[in-house]
Amino acid sequence: MNAASTGDGLRVGVDLGGTRIRAVAFDQAMEPLGRAAASTGAPEGVAAVVQRMAECVREAVAAADSHLDDVAGVGVGAAGLTDWRSGKVLLASNLGWRDVPLRDLLASELDDVRVEVDKDTNAAALAEARLGQGRRFRDFLYLTAGTGIGGGEVMGGRLYRGATGGAGDIGHVVVDPDGPRCGCGAHGCVEVFSSGEGIVGRARDALTAADGVASELSPSELTTEAVFRAAERGDRVAGAVVGRAAEALGMALAMYVNLNNPEAIIVGGGVAQAAPGYRERAGRVLKERALPALAGVVQVLGPGLGDDAGAVGAALLVSTDEVTNGAHSVTTRQGQTA
Amino acid sequence: MNAASTGDGLRVGVDLGGTRIRAVAFDQAMEPLGRAAASTGAPEGVAAVVQRMAECVREAVAAADSHLDDVAGVGVGAAGLTDWRSGKVLLASNLGWRDVPLRDLLASELDDVRVEVDKDTNAAALAEARLGQGRRFRDFLYLTAGTGIGGGEVMGGRLYRGATGGAGDIGHVVVDPDGPRCGCGAHGCVEVFSSGEGIVGRARDALTAADGVASELSPSELTTEAVFRAAERGDRVAGAVVGRAAEALGMALAMYVNLNNPEAIIVGGGVAQAAPGYRERAGRVLKERALPALAGVVQVLGPGLGDDAGAVGAALLVSTDEVTNGAHSVTTRQGQTA
Repeated sequence: MNAASTGDGLRVGVDLGGTRIRAVAFDQAMEPLGRAAASTGAPEGVAAVVQRMAECVREAVAAADSHLDDVAGVGVGAAGLTDWRSGKVLLASNLGWRDVPLRDLLASELDDVRVEVDKDTNAAALAEARLGQGRRFRDFLYLTAGTGIGGGEVMGGRLYRGATGGAGDIGHVVVDPDGPRCGCGAHGCVEVFSSGEGIVGRARDALTAADGVASELSPSELTTEAVFRAAERGDRVAGAVVGRAAEALGMALAMYVNLNNPEAIIVGGGVAQAAPGYRERAGRVLKERALPALAGVVQVLGPGLGDDAGAVGAALLVSTDEVTNGAHSVTTRQGQTA
Repeated sequence: MNAASTGDGLRVGVDLGGTRIRAVAFDQAMEPLGRAAASTGAPEGVAAVVQRMAECVREAVAAADSHLDDVAGVGVGAAGLTDWRSGKVLLASNLGWRDVPLRDLLASELDDVRVEVDKDTNAAALAEARLGQGRRFRDFLYLTAGTGIGGGEVMGGRLYRGATGGAGDIGHVVVDPDGPRCGCGAHGCVEVFSSGEGIVGRARDALTAADGVASELSPSELTTEAVFRAAERGDRVAGAVVGRAAEALGMALAMYVNLNNPEAIIVGGGVAQAAPGYRERAGRVLKERALPALAGVVQVLGPGLGDDAGAVGAALLVSTDEVTNGAHSVTTRQGQTA
């Protein structure tokens, strides 16, 4: 890692999603100076996506009146299971990727500029930690409830990634062992109740089971949005689905609190943002279910950053301290033991 | 904190349990040089217990042919919820203590030597991290299955304590929302199935429910040991209780793995040690239940340290780095943000 090179020059953050690529060029004070975006176009294959990412980086840098030579590094937040050490995307179902060496591919498209890759929820957690709601906390969970449910953990003021980058993926906490089967193979993961896809799936189940109960929901036009709107208007079927979603999320959060005793949980993502009161309901369940001593200190909050959060966090990955804490800690540990 | 004073002199570790106080004086290489022990005698009150702890420290130091003046610090691992920042024992039901300023009380009994206090499971986790099975890992959970179930988390090679010292207390992960009520108020915590008290309680329930089913267990002589022995001899009632205990522990561990992606889980404590195969069975359930990518990397192990573990870990608390990581991290974070 070239620590010296991060002292000056631009940092570019790239948010790689299933449908969009967004790149933002920041100065060292993290002011956004230039932007670019494109469709991901995953069906065209890895090489085409990587080329488009490189184009977005070049465009964002040009929009910042700068050149690639002035870029200290490029950070990428990728949707999917990612090994930040090797810079590989291990599994990204919405991209159809498996074991893609994204860091090396993108670096070679960009004249071997420094590139760091991490999962998008870690990037967002880092953005909240440095520039968002997380600035006030040392220990928090960033959770995103969108199509699925994922997260990132900040502990002692730093990203905690776990052994293989899977830390904070709260979507597969089991809240009902007898519940519907999840894509992961287990039954009753919080994701099957509380994510966008889960809410639609449970509404479909409810419409099938509640034969004869009046509902404004139509099985052929089910969206998360439609379920939330129907619930707000008093639809009983939709109301039960949303209630169960918030309850399941609160139970998963209670489990997290009982295990990791965080100061805060920051709940972001499209589903949480779309439904007024969803976060609050989940927060109430958490407070009821978690150990009182731990529930009493944890705050449940919305995110502090808007649409740029993913790109901000990705750009922050290009800081030696954010990516090498493993190596640092081992050094420290040996020093202490000696 | 007086960092310089830890460079020489003895470190004394005190293990404060519900029935015994044990003190061990170590040199700077963590070689044990002197020992002392006493009954806790909690019913005599806080002052008497603190005095006895101080006597044990003086005796252990004398047994090491040394003097209190040569002691760099005294660390205490206390059974119960403990605030390591203030050195207070917040709640220890087996001592009958609430909000006891143990650090300050013990320091004043010991000519104001430096004292650090943490919960006993954090002390044991630290001992494993520096001198036991945890030396090979940066990220692991130390779990103890005894009368109750508790734990301590090591992340990035350091103790992670959480907002108020409650991190790693895995006993209150809910594995069956319809299960028996736990002392914490929730239903179906892993502790009601898999701890020593839980195993006895579930065996009692099973004997009541299984009216007519033959069992060698006697309701009036139920102990964890008796249940394990009966299960080994093929007793069906006992076998079901032990099977459920191992399964519940495995489910809780799977939850931990899905959230925190550790490299290892070290399972210690009297219950885990007493029952051959208990840890292995729980480990198998964990491997079946956790996300395959995370289950594939985690190792489930027994502890590397024996009876001294609590005292070793307590003595290790007297190292500036082990107790001030919070302050360090905040400094680092500000530095990175600037």
